[in-house]
Amino acid sequence: MDSWNEVAKQLRVDSIRSTTKAGSGHPTSCLSAADLMAVLLVSHLRYDVAEPRALANDRLIFSKGHAAPLLYSMLKAAGAVSDAELMTLRRMGSPLEGHPVPVFPYVEVATGSLGQGLALAVGMALATQRLDRVDHRLWVLLGDSELAEGSVYESLEAAGFHGLKNITAILDMNRLGQRGFTMLGWDGDAYATRARAFGWDAVVIDGHDLAAIDGAYTAAENGSRPTLIVARTKKGAGVSFLEDHEGWHGRPLSRDEAARALAELGFASGAPSLVVRPSPREKSVSKPREAPAGLELPGYAPQSSVATRVAFGDALAALGAADLRIVALDGEVANSTYLDRFARAHPERFFEMYIAEQQMVSAAVGMQVLGYKPFAATFAAFLTRAFDQVRMGSLSRATLNLVGSHVGVSIGEDGPSQMGLEDLAMMRSVHGSVVLYPSCANATVKLTAQMVDRQGITYLRTTREKTPVLYSATEPFPIGGSKVLRRSGHDLAAIVAAGITVHEALKAHAELSERGIPTRVIDLYSVKPVDRPTLIEAARECPGGLLVVEDHHPEGGLADAVAEAFDGMRAPLLRRLAVRTMPGSATPEEQLRAAGIDARAIVEALFPIAERSAPLSAENGGDGRLGPA
Amino acid sequence: MDSWNEVAKQLRVDSIRSTTKAGSGHPTSCLSAADLMAVLLVSHLRYDVAEPRALANDRLIFSKGHAAPLLYSMLKAAGAVSDAELMTLRRMGSPLEGHPVPVFPYVEVATGSLGQGLALAVGMALATQRLDRVDHRLWVLLGDSELAEGSVYESLEAAGFHGLKNITAILDMNRLGQRGFTMLGWDGDAYATRARAFGWDAVVIDGHDLAAIDGAYTAAENGSRPTLIVARTKKGAGVSFLEDHEGWHGRPLSRDEAARALAELGFASGAPSLVVRPSPREKSVSKPREAPAGLELPGYAPQSSVATRVAFGDALAALGAADLRIVALDGEVANSTYLDRFARAHPERFFEMYIAEQQMVSAAVGMQVLGYKPFAATFAAFLTRAFDQVRMGSLSRATLNLVGSHVGVSIGEDGPSQMGLEDLAMMRSVHGSVVLYPSCANATVKLTAQMVDRQGITYLRTTREKTPVLYSATEPFPIGGSKVLRRSGHDLAAIVAAGITVHEALKAHAELSERGIPTRVIDLYSVKPVDRPTLIEAARECPGGLLVVEDHHPEGGLADAVAEAFDGMRAPLLRRLAVRTMPGSATPEEQLRAAGIDARAIVEALFPIAERSAPLSAENGGDGRLGPA
Repeated sequence: MDSWNEVAKQLRVDSIRSTTKAGSGHPTSCLSAADLMAVLLVSHLRYDVAEPRALANDRLIFSKGHAAPLLYSMLKAAGAVSDAELMTLRRMGSPLEGHPVPVFPYVEVATGSLGQGLALAVGMALATQRLDRVDHRLWVLLGDSELAEGSVYESLEAAGFHGLKNITAILDMNRLGQRGFTMLGWDGDAYATRARAFGWDAVVIDGHDLAAIDGAYTAAENGSRPTLIVARTKKGAGVSFLEDHEGWHGRPLSRDEAARALAELGFASGAPSLVVRPSPREKSVSKPREAPAGLELPGYAPQSSVATRVAFGDALAALGAADLRIVALDGEVANSTYLDRFARAHPERFFEMYIAEQQMVSAAVGMQVLGYKPFAATFAAFLTRAFDQVRMGSLSRATLNLVGSHVGVSIGEDGPSQMGLEDLAMMRSVHGSVVLYPSCANATVKLTAQMVDRQGITYLRTTREKTPVLYSATEPFPIGGSKVLRRSGHDLAAIVAAGITVHEALKAHAELSERGIPTRVIDLYSVKPVDRPTLIEAARECPGGLLVVEDHHPEGGLADAVAEAFDGMRAPLLRRLAVRTMPGSATPEEQLRAAGIDARAIVEALFPIAERSAPLSAENGGDGRLGPA
Repeated sequence: MDSWNEVAKQLRVDSIRSTTKAGSGHPTSCLSAADLMAVLLVSHLRYDVAEPRALANDRLIFSKGHAAPLLYSMLKAAGAVSDAELMTLRRMGSPLEGHPVPVFPYVEVATGSLGQGLALAVGMALATQRLDRVDHRLWVLLGDSELAEGSVYESLEAAGFHGLKNITAILDMNRLGQRGFTMLGWDGDAYATRARAFGWDAVVIDGHDLAAIDGAYTAAENGSRPTLIVARTKKGAGVSFLEDHEGWHGRPLSRDEAARALAELGFASGAPSLVVRPSPREKSVSKPREAPAGLELPGYAPQSSVATRVAFGDALAALGAADLRIVALDGEVANSTYLDRFARAHPERFFEMYIAEQQMVSAAVGMQVLGYKPFAATFAAFLTRAFDQVRMGSLSRATLNLVGSHVGVSIGEDGPSQMGLEDLAMMRSVHGSVVLYPSCANATVKLTAQMVDRQGITYLRTTREKTPVLYSATEPFPIGGSKVLRRSGHDLAAIVAAGITVHEALKAHAELSERGIPTRVIDLYSVKPVDRPTLIEAARECPGGLLVVEDHHPEGGLADAVAEAFDGMRAPLLRRLAVRTMPGSATPEEQLRAAGIDARAIVEALFPIAERSAPLSAENGGDGRLGPA
């Protein structure tokens, strides 16, 4: 009890000192949770400070990431960081950022965008409970404002459904949000009722009653379901002029205010800090796993017709046999993305996340922290639902493979709500991402295989429709490369395409060739990074410039990627065919036509160039305008 | 009773006929809800077919948008569309798309991305109940798979919190999702318990018992809270070989199968269709509203220092006085976005949506359908949370104003989780969007004013930091324009900037000028559409080309917008300074420096060009390398 109290005081003191030193931060959001975290650190958290990434460790995720100084203060109390390090909070170059990121070795997942911490824990628990049966506990500190986020309910739902009893969520119900009272205030029963409705155990306690906190943790540890501990707290607790006062969100104390607060807390400058090393769990010897099979990637006969989404499913099933760390997450569309082929082959490593894309992506981020290699797939359009989770994944320095199917207008009759037309823009804009968009089943296999061991966030865009197999099964597809599918010594223009438009480009090439107009066709399967040398060469060699054709809105996609390739130099004549109209329902062919990205549109776009740039061959000479548009 | 039964049969028949004719669609997802919709149409829906947009009408939103053929069949039964029109389902050019969109005059909001229908209804109800006190009912047909989406819980929460008793949600619990059983199957009590936990009334009924359905609707109409009717149904109900059978999701019947099904349903080809016109509500005379005040926009003294986010708040407060249809929605950060200035001036038109961005954006889409002019604001980074809702808003042909604050690395110490670095890419990629990024308070005012009556989706990007006021309060800022802030007759290069980087560009310009290097500075406040003539002129006149400087990732933002301006022509030498590194915590100045987008970076980028392109002035000649990088 004494130790709880002393540690709690120190956490308060250090949260105030570090934020006052930094001149910014959220000290009052730390103070409300200080008692909760003191009891956790002293008596419940099983953690090896010397080996923070050990699988056996408990995890503590600050979903309310703005309370980061409290987390850092805990790590000081645990002997992991020095007081001097703590005082670098929010300074440039310090790993102690304003919100936690894995630059700091004791943080594995970034938080700070609210409502994501529980989802990360769900991912960890799903994987370790089913696959490695690790007996650790996942503690998640939640703020009450973030309980407004729908993503939290996706997590309550998933944890309840799967009975993830090793998750304990601690709700710091201080009732004061950034701009006033939260929706539910101090109505702890309302939160508890919600959690129970999703299959959780829930208890409401006084979050400043140390014995009650200890009791609640013990009960959670012994429970048979995930537990939500609703802790009624006061923002700024422990300091009279802060406690439960409005107007203190996100505001550090001035030096004078800090001095008053520290005096109230009984802080004596120069007195040694308490150190309470948490006791580690026993590192269980990993049980022997089934031996992986050899890798036999699927291959498809050139000129057969196979959808790239099918090739992805086949490839991942094969890769999963050879690498037992690969796991797959589905947004309840596995029969459309063809992730179901992985599910059939490796049912224990297939996670049905239902139609909850935010949870799906966060779960994948959580899983990769523990050494799994997640592939998450849904319709590209619905990945937009998880943009913030992907963005936060990049802050987590996550290795994350995302697959979006049903892209572009070429999906046909289902109409625009199902069409991925913004996904390239979204995924290109993610820091450090790789964006791949194969045109052929064999290319898809080769790119999927490379995703397995790539670091960082990789996005694979697959096509719903069957398309001809263009490449042999042995053709390499390096990330950052491209394929020049057609070329001559005197190409007038280059058609730059990816995915479905490669096939339209090839048709256009053939038609233009017949009319004596030589064109180059580039399959730009690697949208980010993009193959600059090949594009620059095409620009140099093709007097009519580059025509980019994409099944995507004109902004942020293939054309922008091509334009960026000419950063720092004069770009060639560059033209864009993209989806500029709002599509409706129609057949795939009609859609490509209506959007102006089919073979005919390419021919029409290049014909005038050809007329200007070179004489037509005698056979087609002069009269060669195409039929009615 | 007879009429319910007959209408239900006809809805089933027409759902099958239309999807079989189309060759695609989701007939079994229609059949499970046919009884629910028959009773609604015959006995409860108050709707004027002749005036579908009348405010007094009940609204019926198919959140399970893939059941669109059932909706269209209802409208045929209501006498709104002919059988011939119904048979155009999913054909190119038909307003009867695969998922509902407002191309069809009886649809006001697009659905098809699941989990959004209830959120749209919440927006409608919030506005009409508080502002116009319309006595209509908002019926929402939900699928059970979509109950996995967190967005649904944001809506349950909002409707429960605000006591939106005119919302009745009907859950078609057919327990079969796209790829198998839903999470909860037929556990209707589980859904009901969840709804009650959020403050709803809930009842579980047999969704094929017509009298029970009628009773549940009547109870909901008389209830004092929003009501969830959990209807236990069978997918494919009414046809023996479809009913509760797996493997029929999203599959139309073949002609033979359809013939068998129609025979079972007692359909006689050529028999006249039933028509049951719903009875309209009385159109209440709008109560007199307070008279709007005259418009007095704020203005700021040039060279004073004002954050654009503040100017946005001031402007919207002023605009709100002059236009009583303006409403504002906040993601619980109004004291950061400065939406709180609107809240103080017009509290009845300010909607606190708490930290639930998906609900915030969908609510705005719902409100604008009913003639309100919504502005929704949060941190730009957190708008990514609602990308799918914005995307669906474009399908709804919504007029929607979104404002994202705290953009870029220039926010400083809070770190990357709070930085909007992908928002330009996201918002540019939305069909038909306008993207605005002012550098100065007076520009912000003028742009905000134009958003009020603009159709479509408009995004305003505001800056956290104070910046100097550059323009007079009377300067016009047309959408699609730009401002040339510095120019000479012999500029060597043009610096293209927006927002915070305009100020860095001006500093760089001054420094380069001192060294005898004349540069042009363009404030590209309209990122989409972009001012092509001004950029083309700069390209023609500046031998050193264009240097784009943006506080955003290099993909999808300002530089891509500039590159797109040269579509169809040879682009000039174009270089990009953008945020290529992962930021941490640091001061705003340190952040701009570290990202390489500050004045010094601009000077360093342009100095070599200047050296190559023109002799330095005698004064600075030769030795003029800048200090250490």
